[in-house]
Amino acid sequence: MIVHPPVHWFRLLFAWRGSILPAIFPRLMLVLSCALVVVIFHRFTQGFGLQLSVGAFSLIGLALAIFLGFRNSSSYERYWEARKLWGALLINARSLQRQAMSMTSLPADHAELHEFSQLLQAFAYALNHQLRCTDPRSDLYRLLPYPLAKELSVVRYIPSMVLVQLAQYLSVWYRTGKIDVILFQSMDANLNHLSDIQGGCERIMTTPIPYAYSVLIHRTIYMYCILLPLGLVDSCGVLTPLITVFIAYTFMALENIASSLELPFGFEPNDLALNAICRTIERSLLEMRGETTLPPACLPQKNYILD
Amino acid sequence: MIVHPPVHWFRLLFAWRGSILPAIFPRLMLVLSCALVVVIFHRFTQGFGLQLSVGAFSLIGLALAIFLGFRNSSSYERYWEARKLWGALLINARSLQRQAMSMTSLPADHAELHEFSQLLQAFAYALNHQLRCTDPRSDLYRLLPYPLAKELSVVRYIPSMVLVQLAQYLSVWYRTGKIDVILFQSMDANLNHLSDIQGGCERIMTTPIPYAYSVLIHRTIYMYCILLPLGLVDSCGVLTPLITVFIAYTFMALENIASSLELPFGFEPNDLALNAICRTIERSLLEMRGETTLPPACLPQKNYILD
Amino acid sequence: MIVHPPVHWFRLLFAWRGSILPAIFPRLMLVLSCALVVVIFHRFTQGFGLQLSVGAFSLIGLALAIFLGFRNSSSYERYWEARKLWGALLINARSLQRQAMSMTSLPADHAELHEFSQLLQAFAYALNHQLRCTDPRSDLYRLLPYPLAKELSVVRYIPSMVLVQLAQYLSVWYRTGKIDVILFQSMDANLNHLSDIQGGCERIMTTPIPYAYSVLIHRTIYMYCILLPLGLVDSCGVLTPLITVFIAYTFMALENIASSLELPFGFEPNDLALNAICRTIERSLLEMRGETTLPPACLPQKNYILD
Amino acid sequence: MIVHPPVHWFRLLFAWRGSILPAIFPRLMLVLSCALVVVIFHRFTQGFGLQLSVGAFSLIGLALAIFLGFRNSSSYERYWEARKLWGALLINARSLQRQAMSMTSLPADHAELHEFSQLLQAFAYALNHQLRCTDPRSDLYRLLPYPLAKELSVVRYIPSMVLVQLAQYLSVWYRTGKIDVILFQSMDANLNHLSDIQGGCERIMTTPIPYAYSVLIHRTIYMYCILLPLGLVDSCGVLTPLITVFIAYTFMALENIASSLELPFGFEPNDLALNAICRTIERSLLEMRGETTLPPACLPQKNYILD
Amino acid sequence: MIVHPPVHWFRLLFAWRGSILPAIFPRLMLVLSCALVVVIFHRFTQGFGLQLSVGAFSLIGLALAIFLGFRNSSSYERYWEARKLWGALLINARSLQRQAMSMTSLPADHAELHEFSQLLQAFAYALNHQLRCTDPRSDLYRLLPYPLAKELSVVRYIPSMVLVQLAQYLSVWYRTGKIDVILFQSMDANLNHLSDIQGGCERIMTTPIPYAYSVLIHRTIYMYCILLPLGLVDSCGVLTPLITVFIAYTFMALENIASSLELPFGFEPNDLALNAICRTIERSLLEMRGETTLPPACLPQKNYILD
Repeated sequence: MIVHPPVHWFRLLFAWRGSILPAIFPRLMLVLSCALVVVIFHRFTQGFGLQLSVGAFSLIGLALAIFLGFRNSSSYERYWEARKLWGALLINARSLQRQAMSMTSLPADHAELHEFSQLLQAFAYALNHQLRCTDPRSDLYRLLPYPLAKELSVVRYIPSMVLVQLAQYLSVWYRTGKIDVILFQSMDANLNHLSDIQGGCERIMTTPIPYAYSVLIHRTIYMYCILLPLGLVDSCGVLTPLITVFIAYTFMALENIASSLELPFGFEPNDLALNAICRTIERSLLEMRGETTLPPACLPQKNYILD
Repeated sequence: MIVHPPVHWFRLLFAWRGSILPAIFPRLMLVLSCALVVVIFHRFTQGFGLQLSVGAFSLIGLALAIFLGFRNSSSYERYWEARKLWGALLINARSLQRQAMSMTSLPADHAELHEFSQLLQAFAYALNHQLRCTDPRSDLYRLLPYPLAKELSVVRYIPSMVLVQLAQYLSVWYRTGKIDVILFQSMDANLNHLSDIQGGCERIMTTPIPYAYSVLIHRTIYMYCILLPLGLVDSCGVLTPLITVFIAYTFMALENIASSLELPFGFEPNDLALNAICRTIERSLLEMRGETTLPPACLPQKNYILD
Repeated sequence: MIVHPPVHWFRLLFAWRGSILPAIFPRLMLVLSCALVVVIFHRFTQGFGLQLSVGAFSLIGLALAIFLGFRNSSSYERYWEARKLWGALLINARSLQRQAMSMTSLPADHAELHEFSQLLQAFAYALNHQLRCTDPRSDLYRLLPYPLAKELSVVRYIPSMVLVQLAQYLSVWYRTGKIDVILFQSMDANLNHLSDIQGGCERIMTTPIPYAYSVLIHRTIYMYCILLPLGLVDSCGVLTPLITVFIAYTFMALENIASSLELPFGFEPNDLALNAICRTIERSLLEMRGETTLPPACLPQKNYILD
Repeated sequence: MIVHPPVHWFRLLFAWRGSILPAIFPRLMLVLSCALVVVIFHRFTQGFGLQLSVGAFSLIGLALAIFLGFRNSSSYERYWEARKLWGALLINARSLQRQAMSMTSLPADHAELHEFSQLLQAFAYALNHQLRCTDPRSDLYRLLPYPLAKELSVVRYIPSMVLVQLAQYLSVWYRTGKIDVILFQSMDANLNHLSDIQGGCERIMTTPIPYAYSVLIHRTIYMYCILLPLGLVDSCGVLTPLITVFIAYTFMALENIASSLELPFGFEPNDLALNAICRTIERSLLEMRGETTLPPACLPQKNYILD
Repeated sequence: MIVHPPVHWFRLLFAWRGSILPAIFPRLMLVLSCALVVVIFHRFTQGFGLQLSVGAFSLIGLALAIFLGFRNSSSYERYWEARKLWGALLINARSLQRQAMSMTSLPADHAELHEFSQLLQAFAYALNHQLRCTDPRSDLYRLLPYPLAKELSVVRYIPSMVLVQLAQYLSVWYRTGKIDVILFQSMDANLNHLSDIQGGCERIMTTPIPYAYSVLIHRTIYMYCILLPLGLVDSCGVLTPLITVFIAYTFMALENIASSLELPFGFEPNDLALNAICRTIERSLLEMRGETTLPPACLPQKNYILD
C-alpha cells in the first residue's frame, strides 16, 4: 500500500514512482509507433479506403465503458472487502482479548491468558502467510511455544488449526469452571467470526474474476487502441499520436490497476499492507495486556510503500 | 472455473480455449456475411435510400448500454453470491467441527464425533449433487454408514434431511448430558446457517433473470448487429466488416458470459468449481480431526479447468 | 414466473408469448404511424424548418439513460428482494421444523408437532393470500383445525396472528417443561425472522417507486419516441420508421418490464411463483416429518408460466 | 406518499397534480424565454460568433450524467432506507408484543401488558413527531397515563425515554420472576433494534447530502439549460424552444424529485406516509391483543396523497 | 459539515462560501489562460494542423466518466459509512446506558452507574480525538476521575483501553452478583459493537483510495482540460473560454469534493461534525440518567459550518 503524504496537485501530474506508468510504458510505446505509422502514411492510405470515423469508435466505446466500469468496480470491491476482513480481524482479536480478561476468573497475569493472546497474534500472522504463500515458521516460532509451533508448521490450513487451539483453551477453562458456559459461548461466537474472516480471504484469493472476462476486456482494449489512429487521423492530424497515447494510457492504466487490486494479498505497491496490520494487531493486544514497551509500528519503506 | 496461470498480455490477445470465442464463432460469421453483402452492394443500394447514420446507432446504443450493463452486473452478482454461499459452507463446516470437538464432553476419538464430521461432508456433497442434478449415491455411500446412505438416497431434499440427522446428534448429546443447552443452541445456530446456504443456492438455481429481459436483450443485440453495416459503410468503407465483427464480438461475448454466469452451478468452464470446494471441505475437516493422510486436492484438468 | 427451457438463440429472436411485445404492440403502432407521416411529408415540412438533428436526441438520451437505468435497477432490486424474502421463508420454515423435532422432548409423532408444522405451512399460504389479495379460506381450512381456521379467517393481518399461535405452542411447551428456556428463545428468534419476512413483503407491496418518477419517466419516453422521426428522417430516409420503432420498442419494453417487476406479487407472467414456493414449503416440511407421499410439485402451465 | 391507482399510459402523459411540474413551472418559463430570445435574434448574433455546437453540450452532459445519476441514486437510497427503518419498526413492535404475550407469565388481560403495548405505540408516534418536528403531546396524552405523558412531553429525545420506560417494565418483570432472564435478554435485543431504528432515522434527518454537491449540481444544471439554445439553434431552428424546455424539464424535475426524497420525513407529496404507518402499527398491535374494534386505517386524502 | 438552511434556487447559483469554488479558483484561471491563448492564436495555429475535433474528446470523456463516477461513489460511500458508524455509536451508547439502568440491581443513583456512563461518553470523545489526531486530554480530564484520565492519556489506542475499563465494570458487577451472566453477555455484545465502530473508523482513516487511482484520475482531468480549447475553438469560437472553464469547473470541483469526502474525519467544511455528535451523545446519556440541565447543543459557526 502506498501511503504518500498529500502531494500538491501540480506535482501529482508528473508522478512516476507509485503510478502505474512504468508498468505499461512499453505497450504505450507500441501504440505510439502504430499511430506514427498511420500519420506518416496517411496520404498514401487514403487511396485504399482505410479510413474510419470517430463515430465508429464511440460505438465500440460503449462496450468498453461497460467492460472497464465493471472490471474496475468489481476489482475495487474485492480489494475493499479484503480490507474490511482484515479490519474485522483487528476488531475481533481485540474483542477476544478483552473478553478473556473480563470474562474468565483468571488473574490478569496468568500464563494462559498470555498464551491465548499469543495465539490470537499467531492467527493473524498465519493467515498473512497463507494468503501470500510465504513461510510462516519464523513468526510461529517467535510467538508460540516450540512444540506447538513445530506441530502447526506442517499442517495445510494453519489458521484453522490455531482456531482449534484457541477453542481448546476455552474448553478447558469451561470444564474447570474458570468461565461460565454463557461466556464460553460468547467468546466462541468471536472464534466463528475469525473463521469467517479466514474463509472470506481464502475465497478472494482462490476465485479471481472469471477468466473469460479478462480475455474479453484485454482484447477489446488492445484492438481499440491499435485501430484508434485510423479513426483520429482525419480530424486530429499531427496531434493523432498524442491523443492516441493519452487515450491508451487511461484505458491500459485502468485495466492494470484493476487487475492489481483484484488479488489484493500480494506484494505489489497497491496491495494491502498485511504486515503492517499484523504488527498493529500485535501492538494493540500487547498494550491491552498492560505491556508498556511495544514493538515498533511498521513504517513505509522507500517510495512510501507499506507492505 | 478456469484457473489459468498469469498469461503475458500479448499472448492473452490470441487466447482461444477458455475464451468465449468458440461458442459465438458461427454467429460472428453470420454477421460478417451480412456486412460483406452490404459493402459489396453499397453502390447499388444508395439509389434506394437504404443508408443509416452512425448517430442513429448511438441512440440505440443507449438502450443497449442499459441492458448489457444490467445483464452483466446482475449475472455477476448471482455468480459471486453463489461463491460466497459456498465459501460460507466451508466456514460453517469448520466451525461446527471445531465446536463439536471443544463443546462436547466426548473424547476426541469418539465414534460419534467421526460420524458427525462425515455428515458435514455429506451435506456439502449432497448440496453439490442437488444443484448440479447429478447422482449423489456414490458420495453418500462413501461417506455415510450403509443404512443411512440408503435412506437418504431416495428423498427429494437430501441436504435438509442431512441437517435433520445432524440435529439428532446434537439432540441426543443434549439429552444425555454430553453438551450444555447453551452450547447446543450455539451449534444449532450454525445448522441454521447451513440451512441458509442451502436455501440461497436453491433460490439462485430456480429463479433465473426474468425471461422477458433475456428476450429483450437478445433481440436488441442481434437487431443492432445486423443493421450495423448499413450505418458504418459510409464512413468506414472496406473496413466495415472488420469493425462490425469486432463490435458484434464484444456484445455477443458479453451476453454469452453473462448468461453462463447467471446459473453458476453447471459444468461450463466459467462455472464454480463445486467439486474442488467439496474436496477442500473434506480435507480441512479431516485435518482438523488430526488425520495426516488427506485425499488429494482437486487439480485443474486440461485447459486449466477446475470443476 | 416463466420457466422457459433454454431456447436456441435464433428462435429467441422471434419469441412472442412471454415476451413483452404483445403488451406494447398498440403503442408501437402509434409510433410507427407518426414516423410514416413524417417520412411521407418530409419534403413539405422542410420549408417550415421543422427539422431536428440526431445530436439533440443524444442530449435528451442522457436524461433517459439515467431514468431508465434507475427505473430498471430499482425495480429489479425490489423483485430480487421479494424473492430473497420468500427464499428465507422456506429456510426458516425448515429450521423451525427441524428445531421443533430436535429441541423439544416430544416424541416424533406427537400431535402438537404435527399442528406446529401445519401452522408453519399456513403462515406461508396466508402471506401469499395477503400479498395477492386473494381469499385465504380454502387453504386455512385445509391446513388447520376448523375452529382455528374460522377464527383466523376474519382477522386483518392473518400472518401476524399465525405467529401468535406459533408462539403459544412454544410458550406452552416451555411452561410444561417440554423445552428448555434457551431453546425456546432460539426458536423464538426464528419466529422473529418470519415476522421480518412478513414486514418486508408488506413494505414492498405498499410502497411503490415514488409516483413523480413514474410520471417523469413515462413522459420522457413518449415525448422522445414521438419526436424521434423528425431527428432521424434526414439521415435515415425511408428506414426512419424501422429505426424509430426499434428504438421505441427497446425503451417501452424496458419500462414495461420494470413496472411489472416493481410489484412482484401479482399474477403477471414475470411475477414470482408464490404458489409454487408455498407448495415447495409444504412438500419439504412434510418430507422432514417422515411423510412419504407428498402433494405434487407445481408444474408450469401453458406458456411455461409458473404462478 | 402518493398512492395513485394505476393510470392508463395515455392519461399519465398529461398528469399535472402529483407530478413535479407545478413546482418547476416558473423556471421552465424562464428557460423558454431565453430560448425564444436566442431564436429570434439568431440572425443578428451570428455576426458576433456566439454559436455553440451540440458536441460541446455532450461534453458537459458527461459531468451532468455523473452528477444527476449520483444525486438521484443517493437520494433514493436515503428514501428507501428510511422506508425500511419504518418497516422494521412495525416488525419489531409486533415481535415485542408477541413476546410479551408468550414469554411472560402474566395473564393475557393483565394491565401491564396493556401498558407495555401502549408504550410501543407511543414509541412510533413519538418518533414520527420528532422527525417531523411536530407536537407529540396529543398522541402521548391519548396513549399513555397522564403522569407519564406529562413527564415525557418535556424531554428532548422522547423515543429514548420511551425505551427506558419499556426497559423498566422488563426489569420489573425480571426481578419479580415474571420472566426468565434469557427471555428478558431476548426482548431487550428487540429494544436494541428499536434504538437502531431511532438512530437511523435521526441520522437521515440530520445529515443531508454534502452541501457542496447541491451547489455544484444545481449550478451545472442551470448553466447548461441557459446555454443550451445557443447550441441547438443551428440544427433545430424554430423547434429550439420546444427541445430546450423538454430537456430542461427532465433535468430540473429529476433534481427536484431527488431533493424531495433526500429528506423523506416531511409532508411533501412524495414523502413517506408516517402517519399511516403509525396507524398500521396501532391497528396491528390492538388486533394481536384481541381487540375487535380497531381505529380506521388512514385513507388517502385529496389527490391520492397519504401522509 | 455545512448545515445551510434551504436556499432559494436562484441564490444557490451564486453561492461562494461553502461551495468548492474558492479552492479551485486558481486552477480555473490557469485553464482560462490556456483557452484565451488558443482563441487568440487560432488563426495562426491552423497552418500547423494543431486542430482537434470534439469527437476525440468524447472518446477521452469515456474514461473520464468511469474515473469520476467511481471516484465520486467510492468517496461518498466512505463518507456515508463513517456517518453510519458514528450514528451507531450514538445508538450503542444509548443502549448500553439503558441496559446498565435496567439490567443491574444497582439503584438508579449509584456512583458506578454514573462512572459507567461517563466512560461511554469518554469513548466517543477519545475516538473523535484519535481520528482527528487532536489532544484528548482536556476531554478525558473533564469526564473521568483524575487517575484514570492520567493513565489513559499516555496510551496509543485510547478507545480500546476505555473498552477494557467498561468491561471491568461489567466483570466486577458479574462477580459480585449485581448482574446475571446472561445480561453480562448481552451488554458485552454491545461492547463488541463499540469495538466494531472503532475498527471501522480506523480502517477508513488509514486506508485511502489506492494511490494509483488518484494519480490516474488527476492526470486525466488536467490533460483533458488543457487540451480542451483545441477541440472547441473550431465550433465555439469566442465562447471557447467560457465553455472550457465551465467544463473544467465541473470536473475539478467533483474531484475536489470527492477527495475531501474520502477522509471524512478532518476539519474541512464538508467533513463530519464529530464534535456535534459527541455532544449529542453526552446530552442524550445525561438526559436518560435524569439530568435536567444539559450542556448546550453544538450550533453552527460562521458560514453555517458545524464541526
